[in-house]
Amino acid sequence: MRILVLGAAGMLGGKLVERLVRDGRLGSAPISDLALVDRVAAERPRARGLVVESTAADLAEPGVAAAIVAGRPDVIFHLAAVVSGEAEEDLEKGYRVNVDATRMLLDAVRACEGSYRPRLVFSSSIAVFGPPLPDVIGDDHAATPATSYGTQKAMIELLLSDHARRGFVDGIAIRLPTICVRPGTPNLAASGFFSSIIREPLNGQDAVLPVSPDVQHWFASPRAAIGFLLHAATLDSARLGDRRFLTMPGVSATVAEEIEALRRVGGEDAVRRVHHEPDETIARIVAGWPRAFETRRAQALGFSAEADFDEIVRVYVEDELGG
Amino acid sequence: MRILVLGAAGMLGGKLVERLVRDGRLGSAPISDLALVDRVAAERPRARGLVVESTAADLAEPGVAAAIVAGRPDVIFHLAAVVSGEAEEDLEKGYRVNVDATRMLLDAVRACEGSYRPRLVFSSSIAVFGPPLPDVIGDDHAATPATSYGTQKAMIELLLSDHARRGFVDGIAIRLPTICVRPGTPNLAASGFFSSIIREPLNGQDAVLPVSPDVQHWFASPRAAIGFLLHAATLDSARLGDRRFLTMPGVSATVAEEIEALRRVGGEDAVRRVHHEPDETIARIVAGWPRAFETRRAQALGFSAEADFDEIVRVYVEDELGG
Repeated sequence: MRILVLGAAGMLGGKLVERLVRDGRLGSAPISDLALVDRVAAERPRARGLVVESTAADLAEPGVAAAIVAGRPDVIFHLAAVVSGEAEEDLEKGYRVNVDATRMLLDAVRACEGSYRPRLVFSSSIAVFGPPLPDVIGDDHAATPATSYGTQKAMIELLLSDHARRGFVDGIAIRLPTICVRPGTPNLAASGFFSSIIREPLNGQDAVLPVSPDVQHWFASPRAAIGFLLHAATLDSARLGDRRFLTMPGVSATVAEEIEALRRVGGEDAVRRVHHEPDETIARIVAGWPRAFETRRAQALGFSAEADFDEIVRVYVEDELGG
Repeated sequence: MRILVLGAAGMLGGKLVERLVRDGRLGSAPISDLALVDRVAAERPRARGLVVESTAADLAEPGVAAAIVAGRPDVIFHLAAVVSGEAEEDLEKGYRVNVDATRMLLDAVRACEGSYRPRLVFSSSIAVFGPPLPDVIGDDHAATPATSYGTQKAMIELLLSDHARRGFVDGIAIRLPTICVRPGTPNLAASGFFSSIIREPLNGQDAVLPVSPDVQHWFASPRAAIGFLLHAATLDSARLGDRRFLTMPGVSATVAEEIEALRRVGGEDAVRRVHHEPDETIARIVAGWPRAFETRRAQALGFSAEADFDEIVRVYVEDELGG
């Protein structure tokens, strides 16, 4: 089996590649070739028994998509994206990368001769939902994005579904929860604090909490996200019907619940590292975000996430802090 | 006030232009200029006191959108589209006209210097909804199109909302019901019979009913559709918030109810003109269509349609058969 990972240099891309190399197979199929593509070449993992190629390329440049699918990968993981803040900052870049490049990819797949019809797993986001929202969002709730990033994800969900319905690609878009606890250094995303108030204290550093402890949101660990991607790549897509986008399961938790989970793992010392410094701008952005979902379709299809926030913290400790 | 009508040569475009010329004003503002654009030049109506220009142009050609908005129209009605059947037949043409051309229009508006921010009324469609659907579809129901046409409309709703949110355009997308009774000759649309089983018998001709009389669908007259467009052009858009797409009110009726309405207007002779000749293909397509909506948002904003199918038939008789 030949696998292509677009956005392989990102946090999830890196973890996905690591997992694919470790498993050496996807589902029951041994992996023969692994092609990694990103704007900057992703680090090539050491792998035995499979060919790994890492390429730096801009999918939105003419001809690049065709070159990338020339090897006819059986499964394409498309994780490449301009993130939320940048898509809001630079309208044209966001649409170019998050919409046009994906359309070029779909066009390139469609242009392949013969019966080529790869599985394409696209990382969408709960950013497709914006206010006003019910307390619990069901599978049939309208996409009403409050950002350009969310708009671009929702547009591609539709495009992908249409291409799947017409038989050009075996596509599935999975709406990822906010990934928590993100490893590494703090980033500038408005959602960054959800991770940093756990990560920094467990690393002996201070963290700022810019919102009220009663803020509630929807989370899954990086490990769960990799599980979603792998399951999306292997499930029987006939069960999806024509609606090829799915909200992923997750944990609905308040910041206060996050802090209690931190206390149980890191004790009072860790909790004292979290400093509440209200930031009106961040509070206003976050107020429009989803708080909880009912993800019946995804669960019926076998997707699963952590059971509670304690488990999310435990996964972080196991996967990033060596247990 | 300067007004631009894209798709002016179509059925709704023609009726809209006729109405604008007759009124001489839009809301309380007198119309000074009326620019008509379509792939083939729309007929120029005779108009006193306002300048009417009719241009043949392809909005998807480079530079055309910029030229079209150079006159800084205050209101743009964007009705131009490749219809459902053709968008399904020719994938590339559908995306080119229904998505790319509209994006070029939005780009051209955004590229205008100064504080230019026109009202843009976009004709979307209930084709954004596909199966499985509830019996009555609410305002928060997800767009799950079952056709490329519906997909393209839903993608533009998202793009338009995003551009409105960011302050580039004062946009509003209205999801039109199936327009009934369409005047003129039968077309090849799968929905054509909903109109022809009324229109043909009232014109002394036979009509074919390809589906079961218990098929139920969502209708509004051409007159109501023009009313939606005019109201969308003049309402206080601050009341829309960031969600710039709205399902329009209409009449939910079964084919049997259509036929009863026909009987009340045209008598038994007219009803005998309707021949039930089941067509499995059409029946299967229509089975996935919306049956009824709850359009609270649109009604709260002042949009209104006919009260029942009798009124829809009456409107046809008044507007097309001279009463």
